[in-house]
Amino acid sequence: MGGFAAATTVRKKAEGRYAADLDGDLGIEGAINGGYLMAVMARAVLDQSPHPHPVATSASFLRVAKAGPAEVRVEPLKAGRTAAVARVTLVQNDQALVEALITTGTLDGEAEPVYSVDQEKQPPVEECLEFGPTHGFGRQVDMRYDPATMGWLDGRPTGVPEIRGHLRLREPYEPDGVLLALAVDALPPVVLNTGAKGWAPTVELTWHMRAVPAPGWLSVHGRGRLVRDGWFDEEVEVWDSAGRLVAQSRQIARAGRSG
Amino acid sequence: MGGFAAATTVRKKAEGRYAADLDGDLGIEGAINGGYLMAVMARAVLDQSPHPHPVATSASFLRVAKAGPAEVRVEPLKAGRTAAVARVTLVQNDQALVEALITTGTLDGEAEPVYSVDQEKQPPVEECLEFGPTHGFGRQVDMRYDPATMGWLDGRPTGVPEIRGHLRLREPYEPDGVLLALAVDALPPVVLNTGAKGWAPTVELTWHMRAVPAPGWLSVHGRGRLVRDGWFDEEVEVWDSAGRLVAQSRQIARAGRSG
Repeated sequence: MGGFAAATTVRKKAEGRYAADLDGDLGIEGAINGGYLMAVMARAVLDQSPHPHPVATSASFLRVAKAGPAEVRVEPLKAGRTAAVARVTLVQNDQALVEALITTGTLDGEAEPVYSVDQEKQPPVEECLEFGPTHGFGRQVDMRYDPATMGWLDGRPTGVPEIRGHLRLREPYEPDGVLLALAVDALPPVVLNTGAKGWAPTVELTWHMRAVPAPGWLSVHGRGRLVRDGWFDEEVEVWDSAGRLVAQSRQIARAGRSG
Repeated sequence: MGGFAAATTVRKKAEGRYAADLDGDLGIEGAINGGYLMAVMARAVLDQSPHPHPVATSASFLRVAKAGPAEVRVEPLKAGRTAAVARVTLVQNDQALVEALITTGTLDGEAEPVYSVDQEKQPPVEECLEFGPTHGFGRQVDMRYDPATMGWLDGRPTGVPEIRGHLRLREPYEPDGVLLALAVDALPPVVLNTGAKGWAPTVELTWHMRAVPAPGWLSVHGRGRLVRDGWFDEEVEVWDSAGRLVAQSRQIARAGRSG
């Protein structure tokens, strides 16, 4: 109930072992959000890393998490000047829920891009839609959706697996690497726009932090490239309020049954 | 010297332990190709999985591999009806070189896409360029490059981090999930086209097998979206000879010094 900062707090119990308390509020209909789980794991790995930024996170989602106590285990695999790598496991009732490889590094907040794609246009926050319950995830995370990508909500999926929106927390909390972990998995599944329904469980999600985000809203743009044989990919780009690409992700997930 | 099939052969020593012999031929100037290392790891994980296809592979490259004996250690994390997940480590001289999470599954070769992006146009094999040494990697892998993306080769980088080409092995070997692991890391680094020079070591690479490839050439399309602060992303799509998207990857890597 304390919001995202409280919900991602970890307490060091021993070298490489952290206690966490998973907040059921950061989920939708009982399924705790995978981005939130990655955020908790990022907190633990950053506590023991010489570097402040989660540059690369690859997470395999093994079992469904439940609200309540959990443990994050961090095993360093390499500690370098440019990057450190750790194996990070989220454990509950002696079962691994999520295993991840997390590379931490030190990004220069001031560096200018040598090359960057342009941000795709999307309507400003005030022209975007709110929807969904204001309890649970919606009480913590303020999401506003581009109406052009929300046809599925009225039973008219656009046919293109794409959803765009803006995201910020309702509590005072400016974007950082931990919030980016939430942002890359915060959108409804893009396959809702190709007729899939229901839950779309993530099997594997990899995301990269590319720059230190500016304060303010984050823009999130989710896009799939292939929906086939019950599997779909979802790529999310996160742009900050200064118009910079700050995170990239791709997940592979199971599509809910069409119907 | 025996080609890709021989170079990726693994021999089971005990439950979850496989002997491999890394072939220095599958490298460039002494650096063994990361895609080849992932292919060796895929062979081991497929040997013990109930599923035939490496649906998701996330690999952290920790240390440089050398030609010669190595061991692949496979630790199952989950075995499900739809997907199995294992932690897979490539070890040489008691040091982990690559650690990966590999999800295996069973893809339906006949399924029609619910949605697919279109393949970007590229010139046919016979209008593409060969370059590079015909020993080592070039003796094993036949690569043909779209001339429009090869400006860097003549000191005129295009300014866009993009390289396209076609790939097949020189030995008789039709595409499969193991060859796709090589294909997603076979292109020269796309940052050569934004002025970077020299080696561009991969830090983390995740790839997904999306369909069972048809026989024949594979088309590989590499594209970066942000080059900043010494880091770049490279996304590779692999299309088969039937025009289907069969693999997707993204790697995060360090850019060589511009100059």
